[in-house]
Amino acid sequence: MINPMGGIDFPCIATELHLTETHLLMNAAEFFQQSAGQWRSLRTTHHLAFRRTEKGESEISVEALAADHPKVIEICQLHQIDPTTAIGGAFVQWAGTMAWDKNEDENHTGSTVFALVPDDGAHRRGKMLRERGYAEIVPVVGQFHMDDQDGLILVTEYETMSSVERFWFASPSLRLRTSTVKRFGGFSTATFCTEFRVDPDTQLSDAEATPSSEFYSLLGW
Amino acid sequence: MINPMGGIDFPCIATELHLTETHLLMNAAEFFQQSAGQWRSLRTTHHLAFRRTEKGESEISVEALAADHPKVIEICQLHQIDPTTAIGGAFVQWAGTMAWDKNEDENHTGSTVFALVPDDGAHRRGKMLRERGYAEIVPVVGQFHMDDQDGLILVTEYETMSSVERFWFASPSLRLRTSTVKRFGGFSTATFCTEFRVDPDTQLSDAEATPSSEFYSLLGW
Repeated sequence: MINPMGGIDFPCIATELHLTETHLLMNAAEFFQQSAGQWRSLRTTHHLAFRRTEKGESEISVEALAADHPKVIEICQLHQIDPTTAIGGAFVQWAGTMAWDKNEDENHTGSTVFALVPDDGAHRRGKMLRERGYAEIVPVVGQFHMDDQDGLILVTEYETMSSVERFWFASPSLRLRTSTVKRFGGFSTATFCTEFRVDPDTQLSDAEATPSSEFYSLLGW
Repeated sequence: MINPMGGIDFPCIATELHLTETHLLMNAAEFFQQSAGQWRSLRTTHHLAFRRTEKGESEISVEALAADHPKVIEICQLHQIDPTTAIGGAFVQWAGTMAWDKNEDENHTGSTVFALVPDDGAHRRGKMLRERGYAEIVPVVGQFHMDDQDGLILVTEYETMSSVERFWFASPSLRLRTSTVKRFGGFSTATFCTEFRVDPDTQLSDAEATPSSEFYSLLGW
């Protein structure tokens, strides 16, 4: 695998993951340990009914929590689940903006804590418990599982909507996320986030980069 | 699975796929048979060095080709591969625009044909052969495999760049695609396409829809 200098300095381990079936499989706690740190997120939402695109940026901080962290224990107790069955969790903080039609700007800042409670011995599927979801008062439970490429799938059902999300690492410093949301049974949005690790030692210089020609798939478009 | 009326009329089979391991697995030819038809694509490219977003729209037409189609045989011969090992292919046409910085508009119209030559008995991994890639004179070969959620992964190596793409169906009428591109070993772009089937019987009315509140992940941001 040739990995010469150039472009952006993202460590590169990615391509092999997709074609090798014998790579080490991560459990969900390891996935969040790998997520720990500071990230910058570029987010695009496709509103399917309007065929329009909304974009935003945010800064994200992720702290992995051990299985015996008081917050993890507290969330398990909130959900009436034995805390000794948890394998860990995470504390996430974010700050960012989403613009609708570029006329209205809104700041979104917040934090949340969640806990992972696997259903299986490999700790690759189970429940993700959270204090409460966005605009929800009741505690929220999602179902997670790790797929065969170590992507994390998270399915969350709310009263009138449901979401399917997939998170994966293209490299240790580049995390991607897609989500589709259904409201009342119909797809309403599809979202894509590109999250890159903020490294204080590496300042990206726009001046050094020039627009690269557009990439087209082998499939053409 | 509740699937009431409302939102956009996309048939819904999606959520279960992600949590069920015993669903029927598609082979690559079936994936392209399911792709056949007219699609409208919303595309967003995140340019990582610039932290900027470029968007575009295109119309796509996909025709699945049988294994014994003359075009499939011709492409196999071009690559000096026994045509009887092919399981089919596709003829793809597209027309669309990509805007850079909204100042320059460029029309992109084209068509391509490719053939699928599996390496395995299940027809779930192998080579995707194409006449030639974008801005390439030599024929192009990509490696494909179907993952455990019936997503199609396509890895293509060019001289100075490589791409990893994943295509999947959220429903029979909603196909999603992500791709990451490395140039000279560094990630340069991450792209997301939302492709929905164009159904002449169903006209989406923007007037009927109102902006829905933003969805936030169980993870918060």
